[in-house]
Amino acid sequence: MAEYIEPIARLVNEFSKLPGVGRRSAARLAYHIIEVSEEEATELAKAIVNVKRRVQLCPQCFDLSEGGLCPICADPKRDASLVCVVGDPRDVSAMERTGEFHGKYHVLHGTISPGEGRGPDDIKLKELLSRLADVREVIVATNPDLEGEATAMYIARLIKPMGINVTRIAHGVPVGSDLQYADEVTLGRAIVGRRPL
Amino acid sequence: MAEYIEPIARLVNEFSKLPGVGRRSAARLAYHIIEVSEEEATELAKAIVNVKRRVQLCPQCFDLSEGGLCPICADPKRDASLVCVVGDPRDVSAMERTGEFHGKYHVLHGTISPGEGRGPDDIKLKELLSRLADVREVIVATNPDLEGEATAMYIARLIKPMGINVTRIAHGVPVGSDLQYADEVTLGRAIVGRRPL
Repeated sequence: MAEYIEPIARLVNEFSKLPGVGRRSAARLAYHIIEVSEEEATELAKAIVNVKRRVQLCPQCFDLSEGGLCPICADPKRDASLVCVVGDPRDVSAMERTGEFHGKYHVLHGTISPGEGRGPDDIKLKELLSRLADVREVIVATNPDLEGEATAMYIARLIKPMGINVTRIAHGVPVGSDLQYADEVTLGRAIVGRRPL
Repeated sequence: MAEYIEPIARLVNEFSKLPGVGRRSAARLAYHIIEVSEEEATELAKAIVNVKRRVQLCPQCFDLSEGGLCPICADPKRDASLVCVVGDPRDVSAMERTGEFHGKYHVLHGTISPGEGRGPDDIKLKELLSRLADVREVIVATNPDLEGEATAMYIARLIKPMGINVTRIAHGVPVGSDLQYADEVTLGRAIVGRRPL
């Protein structure tokens, strides 16, 4: 006979499509749903449907938004002359958690990757260029990997001629890490990027 | 400002109530939902609601069922004179995966645990006793931990006087494991429970 009755098999199958959830975890989640109250299960189901219905892209920065401008673009206290370019909406959350950035964002939704057939037109790059009229500095905070670096270079080449400062987030050893375990590329960048004490 | 807009914050919160899902994993799951198609997200939501609506307990063995007798209780080819007692519906799935058991099950939904205030009346024990008329053997397959053992002892004391064989699943070294890493209690049980080759 089948391992699970149909409604459970179906739920295990749906859960196992989630990232990082294997068959075993999916079964654990499914049995958890069976055990919780109907209200709690319904809350989860409604939150899933709700997020699909209500989350859209901000027409200015392309971060996730509930329709119309996102809270950051709509905030007059944020410095509109400073734009931080990131690859993914999650990077906006990460940046906001630092509390160090008070400008606006621009979310590219990807990086230029010839290997995967993604060119400049496949990310929100034209949209970035079209909003730079009153901007004095663009901080490129794409990922510190090969594609992120290439995308940063590409953006710099486009924007510098417009008379706008283009900066890159610093590479270096992570705070709280152990120097002896730092890879040589990172450590090399940390030396080159050293700052006066 | 808040880390997430409201619909996302709500979904992250719901996901983080699931077992083994921390805030970080919950955020990853929420962003995954934002990225998948509306259909895929709806399928998950529907599977959650569906499992709550359709999964009930089998009135005979108390395993999960879609209303009425579960497939195993309803199967005339399964030996009704042999009942395997387990603590949790998941244990039925585990047992079925072995392919070694062809009798019926009884799910206690817990173990006797004076420490946590669970007595014999808090698990499906009366229900077990009331279905033993034509049973020749009860295999007690509660967990091999303190509470599971105590529950097994309790069941044996109740059922043996009814003239029914009561057996316990074997304790021993797991197949494929390394003897030198076996704990001494398990290894001791393996020696005591040795079988002729």
